Amino acid sequence: MKFATIEHGGQLRFGLVEGDAIHLAPEGDRLRAHLDGDLAALATRLRGEPALSLAGVTYTPVVPDAQQVLCIGLNYKDHRAETKGEVGTTYPDNPIVFMRFATSLAAHGESLPIPKVSEVVDYEAELAVIIGKGGRYIAKADAMSHVAGYAPFNDISMRDWQMKGEQWGPGKNFPKSGPFGPVMVTPDEVGDLGETGIRLILDGEVLQESWIKHLIFDIPTLISYCSNFVELRPGDVIVTGTPGGVGFVRKPPILLAPGKTCVVEVDGIGRLENTFHAE
Amino acid sequence: MKFATIEHGGQLRFGLVEGDAIHLAPEGDRLRAHLDGDLAALATRLRGEPALSLAGVTYTPVVPDAQQVLCIGLNYKDHRAETKGEVGTTYPDNPIVFMRFATSLAAHGESLPIPKVSEVVDYEAELAVIIGKGGRYIAKADAMSHVAGYAPFNDISMRDWQMKGEQWGPGKNFPKSGPFGPVMVTPDEVGDLGETGIRLILDGEVLQESWIKHLIFDIPTLISYCSNFVELRPGDVIVTGTPGGVGFVRKPPILLAPGKTCVVEVDGIGRLENTFHAE
Repeated sequence: MKFATIEHGGQLRFGLVEGDAIHLAPEGDRLRAHLDGDLAALATRLRGEPALSLAGVTYTPVVPDAQQVLCIGLNYKDHRAETKGEVGTTYPDNPIVFMRFATSLAAHGESLPIPKVSEVVDYEAELAVIIGKGGRYIAKADAMSHVAGYAPFNDISMRDWQMKGEQWGPGKNFPKSGPFGPVMVTPDEVGDLGETGIRLILDGEVLQESWIKHLIFDIPTLISYCSNFVELRPGDVIVTGTPGGVGFVRKPPILLAPGKTCVVEVDGIGRLENTFHAE
Repeated sequence: MKFATIEHGGQLRFGLVEGDAIHLAPEGDRLRAHLDGDLAALATRLRGEPALSLAGVTYTPVVPDAQQVLCIGLNYKDHRAETKGEVGTTYPDNPIVFMRFATSLAAHGESLPIPKVSEVVDYEAELAVIIGKGGRYIAKADAMSHVAGYAPFNDISMRDWQMKGEQWGPGKNFPKSGPFGPVMVTPDEVGDLGETGIRLILDGEVLQESWIKHLIFDIPTLISYCSNFVELRPGDVIVTGTPGGVGFVRKPPILLAPGKTCVVEVDGIGRLENTFHAE
């Protein structure tokens, strides 16, 4: 099953996506309120609602009102190598976790601002895991039962602001720097994610490409780890990290800029496309 | 004027605090919705509402639904010295900013859990600045017009989790690790904050004491700086940093533990008291 949230008639509306159409839930209802419930039963109910063509709809972030967006840093070996100069098989003992406010989320299809105060606006193709059933101190063995679905995420990073003061938050929380979507795909549709490819395509050129099996800390580990320090809630998002190939370490650097088109593609999960404009 | 949010009859209710009483706003109304408006006119209206004795009320965080809680790290020289070994007048070029989710906030008077997964639970007395009028790219000269009020904040830090993975977020986002209150005091009541004292008192012993004039980056600078990378919104909180004297660097360390009583006192602004229990 696939679910999306869109703007329709001035309202946030979520719905079930099937083929080229979306079956909208009633006004005022939110996807987040259903994520710890029976999504198959929800889909059955929504199929009875009138369908709207997806052509030309205005997407919003899949879970626009996520309470906790937990982002994982340096979670692919080749990205650690390119940014930290590591060689061999050195891994850290623990995941690196930083926080995004939901105020930084953006939508598929949106034109995103290149902030006037940043000169190093970079892309990061990532797989987002959307939490269904909440919980604390979740065991690794149970972790996958807490997943409602997956979506592509572009963890857009203002590198100059990320590096200004030891902690990365400022560079990771600019308004509309976290496009997320277009849809959430439930686990039953994707099966094992190991061989799932993820790539970043900027103006048609593949700049990042990897497979989910290359995550240093895998999805169950991340869910279990984060549930130590936050109580995970339905609709929370764990953004799992980006593979090698980011723009600011390239020689010469390749950065996001007005007029470019950036795509995050996760096989079987979706294609998140954004353009950019000068703020 | 002083405002607080309490739990009353199973509902979140905010009100105007005068003397030993609180005049409650109607059910369903939230303090956050008023912070960019005329608080004096709000106070006048609320004085017409019935008063409830403050004795025995259950406080909640002052702004329980804050959308962005921005915390400043290492913003007093003596705290930089004790944690980084700095001597002399070396200051960083920029504030260090990390993020708290509102899910980590707690209330005055609450017994807070000492998490079973942390062995280094530390206190940090801080002044919280609550944003009134929102904005982006706020000039330093205009910044104080964006302040709705002030409150004490205890930026409780699980040091082991803060240091596990380069970024501090995990150690700063445990549930109920950010007590905040008891009340918000408006700027007209406190005047210039320079000579305002701030202290941390654990079981009657003063462990931190400083004055707001010792902030390395002052309040207008912090507001202006943060407004570069987030759009500040009414009810957002900037937690301005803690003075020297934290517990984990003491020899021997002094840590929070079940049965202790911890007070953050900010002169003229309030006295935030919490006890602790084993999770």
